[in-house]
Amino acid sequence: MTDTLKRIVLASRPDGAPTDDNFRLEDAPLPSPGADEVLIRVHYMSLDPYMRGRMDDAKSYAAPVPIGGTMEAGGVGEVIASQSPDFAVGDFVFGMMGWTTHAVMPAAELRKLDPKLAPPTTALGVLGMPGFTGWYGLNKLGRPKAGETLVVAAATGPVGSMVGQLAKAAGLRAVGIAGGADKCALATDTLGFDACIDHRAYDSASDLRAALADACPDGIDIYFENVGGKVFDAVFPLMNPHGRIPICGVVSWYNAGGKIDSEVPTPTLWRQTLVKFLSINGFIIMNHWDDYPEFLTEIAPKVVTGDIKFLEDVAEGIENAPTAFMGMLRGKNRGKQIVKLI
Amino acid sequence: MTDTLKRIVLASRPDGAPTDDNFRLEDAPLPSPGADEVLIRVHYMSLDPYMRGRMDDAKSYAAPVPIGGTMEAGGVGEVIASQSPDFAVGDFVFGMMGWTTHAVMPAAELRKLDPKLAPPTTALGVLGMPGFTGWYGLNKLGRPKAGETLVVAAATGPVGSMVGQLAKAAGLRAVGIAGGADKCALATDTLGFDACIDHRAYDSASDLRAALADACPDGIDIYFENVGGKVFDAVFPLMNPHGRIPICGVVSWYNAGGKIDSEVPTPTLWRQTLVKFLSINGFIIMNHWDDYPEFLTEIAPKVVTGDIKFLEDVAEGIENAPTAFMGMLRGKNRGKQIVKLI
Repeated sequence: MTDTLKRIVLASRPDGAPTDDNFRLEDAPLPSPGADEVLIRVHYMSLDPYMRGRMDDAKSYAAPVPIGGTMEAGGVGEVIASQSPDFAVGDFVFGMMGWTTHAVMPAAELRKLDPKLAPPTTALGVLGMPGFTGWYGLNKLGRPKAGETLVVAAATGPVGSMVGQLAKAAGLRAVGIAGGADKCALATDTLGFDACIDHRAYDSASDLRAALADACPDGIDIYFENVGGKVFDAVFPLMNPHGRIPICGVVSWYNAGGKIDSEVPTPTLWRQTLVKFLSINGFIIMNHWDDYPEFLTEIAPKVVTGDIKFLEDVAEGIENAPTAFMGMLRGKNRGKQIVKLI
Repeated sequence: MTDTLKRIVLASRPDGAPTDDNFRLEDAPLPSPGADEVLIRVHYMSLDPYMRGRMDDAKSYAAPVPIGGTMEAGGVGEVIASQSPDFAVGDFVFGMMGWTTHAVMPAAELRKLDPKLAPPTTALGVLGMPGFTGWYGLNKLGRPKAGETLVVAAATGPVGSMVGQLAKAAGLRAVGIAGGADKCALATDTLGFDACIDHRAYDSASDLRAALADACPDGIDIYFENVGGKVFDAVFPLMNPHGRIPICGVVSWYNAGGKIDSEVPTPTLWRQTLVKFLSINGFIIMNHWDDYPEFLTEIAPKVVTGDIKFLEDVAEGIENAPTAFMGMLRGKNRGKQIVKLI
């Protein structure tokens, strides 16, 4: 067994889009688990847009990563030493291990995985936080009804692909937005979206809006908001009366160094919310773990049978995590971005 | 019985705040009721901020009043001729009669009142659309919990006074905003608000916000939005996580010729909605008449006993309705603005 781990720490805070300088690869001695702790060898770590928010020293729902601190991430790995009666060496677990090859974690913060039930990487994507985010936001806040029209961006990503597939299964018209013709083909051909619009083909929000209006002849009843920015500007005027907008992310405004303005001024947004009786709900999935068993019971069997599909992009080696992360913020990945560490 | 009626029609559309030129007083022959219709002598008509919206030729939840058309209003009156088996001469009724001394109305669009149960004017205010708006928005969308803090503007108006009194009864801290020290004294001394802030005493949203922060030491959990504008700018940054914002009006942005901008840009509003898990719901009470019996059953007895108080401002004569309406949009009224026509 090695006696050192490798990890990526936050070297400095980004100004806009993160750069290589914001990250530092470090070696550190392998820690030993204390009472009720286990040592994990991380097999796969997750890269998610929310991590960009943690790099800022801004008030948010979670504390920022301190300078010099290990970047946050969910991971799946194998227990290689245990001081907990609940976990044995060889168990596969999920937890917030960070950008690191090894981690000591309190047993209470780990969830045991059954690698025979589904591949362990699914705990990071389709059956993990992103898939759960899509399921929760659509069903609990979007309140989908057959015959309605849903729009979601990042359609091939782990949130958008869950939202689109669930909406289709519920009898909605599902219209995706994605960056590039390849992703749009994946969205319609593999994931079953009724239509998918390549936002890169439209420079302005109004051009994108015209394309959306064509793809949504009956207007938009649910906009599952995960990007903000140009897509928001294009979508918002197309919302139908009684529309619902669950918000789980605004990555293009805040997480990727994008321009932080909107063609929809606040008074217009507010007035339209009133006259269209819109229901707008921000949420982060960390507040809703009580519903996770319901999600897993419903969705895990469908992942196993292939009724719910998922796409993964796998980078290799912790030293490549920053590049993969920065690429993801620019939309380079097609599906759930994972880093393989073993 | 007279053979003419007097009514106020929309002479022209306002540009900003309405002026006398936008209204015209007309005489017209008294119409006769057809089958299943009744003729009503209007005793009291209601003036409400939403009427300002109807004067614009803008897409909204309701059609605009046409040029030359009678201004819309709810009214209470006495049946003076009936071609309906459901209404007898002498019955008191509520309906959308308009700014008019007499109206022929389909029986199906009228609601019979029991003048012995409560004064007929209450059908326009505390037991009518405004009171129902406050009750619905607070209870169904605001989801009040004891110990929380609520803020509502136009605190002595018919919506705000209902919201504040219900919030107090539910164990919340109720903080009002009103224009002028007299109204603030009414809000605290008569209506039972814990505090009331005179927005006229603060030129800037940030100064108003500082006063609100003092009055809301635990932040704001529910902002019942009925004004927009400076009050919105002051309140929004003080919202607590999991806060709720029912929106029933944005009068200061759209109905009174106010400045249509905000210190809270849309991307900030959207991001804060996410990171604070806010729930924002626009509504108009016309969509929720199914819940009216529940409201009336709960609230009417409390109005009779005085457990729910209400304030009325009564103008006299239809010719004075435009002046009273324009005054209301500038906040001259303290309570529910009514015009006595008899």
